[in-house]
Amino acid sequence: MRLLITGTDTGVGKTFITYNLAKELKERGYKVGCLKPVETYVREVPEDGSLLSKATGQSVNEIVPVRFSLPLAPYAATLEEGRDFALEELGKHYEELSKKYKFLLVEGAGGIAVPIKKNYTYANLARDWKLKVLIVGRAGLGTINHTFLTWYYAKATGLEVIGIILNGFTGEDVSERTNPQIIEEMTGIKPYKVPRIQDVELPKDIRTGLADYVLSRFTP
Amino acid sequence: MRLLITGTDTGVGKTFITYNLAKELKERGYKVGCLKPVETYVREVPEDGSLLSKATGQSVNEIVPVRFSLPLAPYAATLEEGRDFALEELGKHYEELSKKYKFLLVEGAGGIAVPIKKNYTYANLARDWKLKVLIVGRAGLGTINHTFLTWYYAKATGLEVIGIILNGFTGEDVSERTNPQIIEEMTGIKPYKVPRIQDVELPKDIRTGLADYVLSRFTP
Repeated sequence: MRLLITGTDTGVGKTFITYNLAKELKERGYKVGCLKPVETYVREVPEDGSLLSKATGQSVNEIVPVRFSLPLAPYAATLEEGRDFALEELGKHYEELSKKYKFLLVEGAGGIAVPIKKNYTYANLARDWKLKVLIVGRAGLGTINHTFLTWYYAKATGLEVIGIILNGFTGEDVSERTNPQIIEEMTGIKPYKVPRIQDVELPKDIRTGLADYVLSRFTP
Repeated sequence: MRLLITGTDTGVGKTFITYNLAKELKERGYKVGCLKPVETYVREVPEDGSLLSKATGQSVNEIVPVRFSLPLAPYAATLEEGRDFALEELGKHYEELSKKYKFLLVEGAGGIAVPIKKNYTYANLARDWKLKVLIVGRAGLGTINHTFLTWYYAKATGLEVIGIILNGFTGEDVSERTNPQIIEEMTGIKPYKVPRIQDVELPKDIRTGLADYVLSRFTP
């Protein structure tokens, strides 16, 4: 299973969901690896990469091969920091991890149309690396528009969206009641709902449900 | 000029931009009308409609024919409030205003894929009402993804996007420096940049620039 985990926006919980999915798959005995090809806004150590390594036991270097310090899209970071990286190198690293792990969860940065290079987005990467797509969106107002647009662009670029995770249900936003149903009507995909919690680890039953949801929808 | 003013998200400044554009066009002597077909989250009076009426002198009833009280997408509001409205009636109202005004600015609710009815989005409305599209997006991190996805969906549904307004520049978010250039590279449209201000009225020079930008890019 080669999966791009993308968000409908920055800060919707991509790493949180990737961490919990990886942890659950590992506890089920699967060989699981994570790859965040490019992490930006890295001060000392890559925060996302460090969290993911706690779930899989990988080294942070293996998870995050390319890093930038500014909070930017990867392409913008190359412009601002005057450094670049080779997509071919990234591809080789991906191939190595693909052989090493049965499940490889590839986390994007921000949304699916975020540019990694000039006019080369995460959707292009997913197509070139033959990744299927899991969309993580917020639970509240505005998620219908972003989830649909993300799904629409992914499909239009030839990708298979295997599932939608709506993250952060609090019960305080009235749109939470109808968002899942409307997203299913618009995309044909029944979202999986994840509550907002303070901790990084989901309760076991929700984590189990998350992994079951993804596994049931992933056809090799 | 029949223009849909849509946002890349909820709360990016659609009404603020519509108000300033309408006010500038009116000051130039054009007959300008605004139409917000559906306003949700209406407590006493429609807030967006009331602001727009200050720019054009229209009655709020003319501007906002359909109202719901909950903060939801229109379709979700019909489900939650158990009330519905007829698109045909809305269409008739639009036709009347189209005849009455040389410039008709139609403001959406949230983003372009927000459903007005089941599987009927603002993009569908724009196509049926033969509206061209002006996208309003935020200035900072995350706007590349949302602006591109909004532009992509609009184009894919056969709409003409005449311009992109990036709203809320503060100079504090490093991505503000590269977002306009990258959005232009990805869409072919040079965005117009609007600074964040506390007031509802833009300084005259920026308002003039906004109207010049829109007029110069609008071909009947």
